[in-house]
Amino acid sequence: MFQLVRNSSKPLGDQLVDELRDLIVAGRLATGSKLPSVRQLARRTGVSPYTVMTAFERLQATGLIVARAGSGYFIAPRAEMTGPAVAELGPSPPQSAALGYVHAVMEQKSISVPAGSGFLPASWYSEGISPSMVSRRINGALARPTSVQGDAVLRELLAERLHARDIPAAPRNIIVTIGASQGFDLIIRALLSPGDAVLIDDPGYFVLLTRLTASGVRLIPVPKSHDGTALDALEELARTERPRMFFTQTQLHNPTGISASPANCHGILQVAEKYNFLVVEDHVHSDLAPAHLVSLARIDELRRVFYVGSYTKVLCPGIRIGFLAAPERFVAQFLEAKVLTLLSCSTLDELVLREVLASGKYRRYLERLRDRLTRARTLAVAALKRSGLYFDTPNGDGLFLWSSVPRTVDVERLIAEARRAGIFLADGALFSPTGRGDSRLRLNVAYAADPLLIDFLCGQLQGCSGTNP
Amino acid sequence: MFQLVRNSSKPLGDQLVDELRDLIVAGRLATGSKLPSVRQLARRTGVSPYTVMTAFERLQATGLIVARAGSGYFIAPRAEMTGPAVAELGPSPPQSAALGYVHAVMEQKSISVPAGSGFLPASWYSEGISPSMVSRRINGALARPTSVQGDAVLRELLAERLHARDIPAAPRNIIVTIGASQGFDLIIRALLSPGDAVLIDDPGYFVLLTRLTASGVRLIPVPKSHDGTALDALEELARTERPRMFFTQTQLHNPTGISASPANCHGILQVAEKYNFLVVEDHVHSDLAPAHLVSLARIDELRRVFYVGSYTKVLCPGIRIGFLAAPERFVAQFLEAKVLTLLSCSTLDELVLREVLASGKYRRYLERLRDRLTRARTLAVAALKRSGLYFDTPNGDGLFLWSSVPRTVDVERLIAEARRAGIFLADGALFSPTGRGDSRLRLNVAYAADPLLIDFLCGQLQGCSGTNP
Repeated sequence: MFQLVRNSSKPLGDQLVDELRDLIVAGRLATGSKLPSVRQLARRTGVSPYTVMTAFERLQATGLIVARAGSGYFIAPRAEMTGPAVAELGPSPPQSAALGYVHAVMEQKSISVPAGSGFLPASWYSEGISPSMVSRRINGALARPTSVQGDAVLRELLAERLHARDIPAAPRNIIVTIGASQGFDLIIRALLSPGDAVLIDDPGYFVLLTRLTASGVRLIPVPKSHDGTALDALEELARTERPRMFFTQTQLHNPTGISASPANCHGILQVAEKYNFLVVEDHVHSDLAPAHLVSLARIDELRRVFYVGSYTKVLCPGIRIGFLAAPERFVAQFLEAKVLTLLSCSTLDELVLREVLASGKYRRYLERLRDRLTRARTLAVAALKRSGLYFDTPNGDGLFLWSSVPRTVDVERLIAEARRAGIFLADGALFSPTGRGDSRLRLNVAYAADPLLIDFLCGQLQGCSGTNP
Repeated sequence: MFQLVRNSSKPLGDQLVDELRDLIVAGRLATGSKLPSVRQLARRTGVSPYTVMTAFERLQATGLIVARAGSGYFIAPRAEMTGPAVAELGPSPPQSAALGYVHAVMEQKSISVPAGSGFLPASWYSEGISPSMVSRRINGALARPTSVQGDAVLRELLAERLHARDIPAAPRNIIVTIGASQGFDLIIRALLSPGDAVLIDDPGYFVLLTRLTASGVRLIPVPKSHDGTALDALEELARTERPRMFFTQTQLHNPTGISASPANCHGILQVAEKYNFLVVEDHVHSDLAPAHLVSLARIDELRRVFYVGSYTKVLCPGIRIGFLAAPERFVAQFLEAKVLTLLSCSTLDELVLREVLASGKYRRYLERLRDRLTRARTLAVAALKRSGLYFDTPNGDGLFLWSSVPRTVDVERLIAEARRAGIFLADGALFSPTGRGDSRLRLNVAYAADPLLIDFLCGQLQGCSGTNP
């Protein structure tokens, strides 16, 4: 078909887009014909599936190719390529991989085992908030907007919880947000410009990765190590790329489950200080982490570290409340960005969370949840190993298992087959721009020992003789 | 001090910033000394207060001047101008006029008469949602995330309501949002780029105006007329500026209260079609509008018009739910932008609104609210006229009164005096980049006949002998 040039100053992704565009525009690929799958093309051209996926999305945005749900990418009919006058008003929808994944998770239609989801089973959450906690809050919550920064008592409670982890945040350092997503969004809007170099965990949280890509910053992936971040790589990248910021998850990392050691946290901050960049610490799962873990925000005392937390994943997906704790000099900018995008959060949601945190029930709920996750993890790892998956990071913890599929298996096909069997799997390739997620699956421990999943994997991977050996 | 050059290719605002910067950097304005007030400098240089306000914010962002709450702008101390190394990581907080206003509205601390607020009194809202409506929804709402696009039944109900106004939106055209703000934000993110020419109502909703300015688009203000938009001006600006989009509020316009006539709506769409731009119709108050009013979305049948609605202002400030109805070809892009910024709305809030809309109580609530607003408006206009304010748009309707202050009055001083008396007023200058809001106040009809306000205005404007003549 064509050859990509390594060591060229033109990125491989750009080469791929240009080559494909030329072939299509020249009419050498018939309209309506199917393109190779992401994996096929990745193998053939020697780039990562992530690069191919991104190239397909860019071509789709220009209208040259179209995606058909479940069956792949096709050369667009001529009419769609040029389009009627009115279509020029807006580009075609991009339909990114991130969007497709999130839709699948949130809709969960025709899925029996949502093993790729980032949420826990509804029955697990139902112990966190009782209906009476909500009822008690309704009367005061409806008729008034909350403040832009978030309810003052709620911020007091959040500050107390941070103090318990030795993070010196006062209520004035805290901005209540719509989940962690808005925390990231406020930081990106207020502090980053297109072209800025930004360090990210590789692998890492793919929605953040997609959000950062969309903002036009230059992403610099930093590999994870067994005890957190690969410090040599971090220092080298900081020296050569002069980054403005590092987004990292130091506790119960998504997708690997790794938590950074105290020494690793210290090392990250040393590099940040030497090269003077800011750090965003994603702590959305940290309420599930063992108490002895340290955090960057704790060592740094909230000087150059932003702390992003959320209650969506650990407490309750039905209310959308997270928070951002930031050095005071940045707070006004974040508030301005919040006003301009959505004024304030839901008063009702804020007061419900306030009720939960004030009641003391949350501590007991977390204890039960941690026990439950530990038991589920033990069961799941044993069953998954028998089914033919293997694990590079056996000491992981929290919600996720980062498992590897034998290299001979076509992961894309495996995921499609699973979907037909009512099983939703998260493709590891989503989580890495450099191929560190290829041949991997991120599994939710709560679903990962489900017999339907184990049977399916055994059948596909031929790694064992059954679920009850 | 210095002279600004009219007819220069350099905008007056840029000239102002540069002149002030040169004076400060050259040391000709002593550190710590107070700058003239916004109004004083506007009068002296012959530019609008809005232009001066923006220039001050830009200088503040660079650290050259600092704002002190309630007392104005000051030349920053040398140390703050250069700042320590760590401060270079982030610019100083901008603290825009919009942010200051919104904080004042949302906090409402030490305010007896929030006449400048965009919200109704809490007691008015309390009839819209009863606690039992929320209780009924709690059980299903907490343990699951809602879908990215929004609860399917809620979207059905929203579509039905649009159909009742002859707007052909299907549930698939509708995206549930965090109030109207997120509707605007999704449109700006997905469809606008820095430098794009964008038409806006002048005067118009200032938070949107600030948001658009922050996105780097080129704002083209279009004057309002007594029956909607000044069509001659619209056509001339469309011809010369080739805009990509027009943001307009055709019903119960904020701040003027004007609703566009059917002929005016038709005229707007004719220009939009001729010059091929998109239209965003802000309908956040339309549930309070008389049923006979037409809308752009109705005439256009949702082809080039985006319809932005919200329940925050008319039903309940305590839940944050609005929606965006869009031509189908744009929906996927908006969903992608929504995923990347905050995944989804609050399930609890969505299900509460669903309960309200399904119950039929909302129709009766709206009827009572409309009657209440009409009575309040009649009372307020009479009292305010006696107090010395006057009205250019006496046929306005809805939440707001757009009143004029005699030209001899210093509005900035008036607002500061009011604040000391526990009265919060909204400065008309906030609503216009061209000075069309100078010497004006936007008043909330629900508070505008309050004796404390009337007495205060009588005393300040010396327009009458008392509140009970």
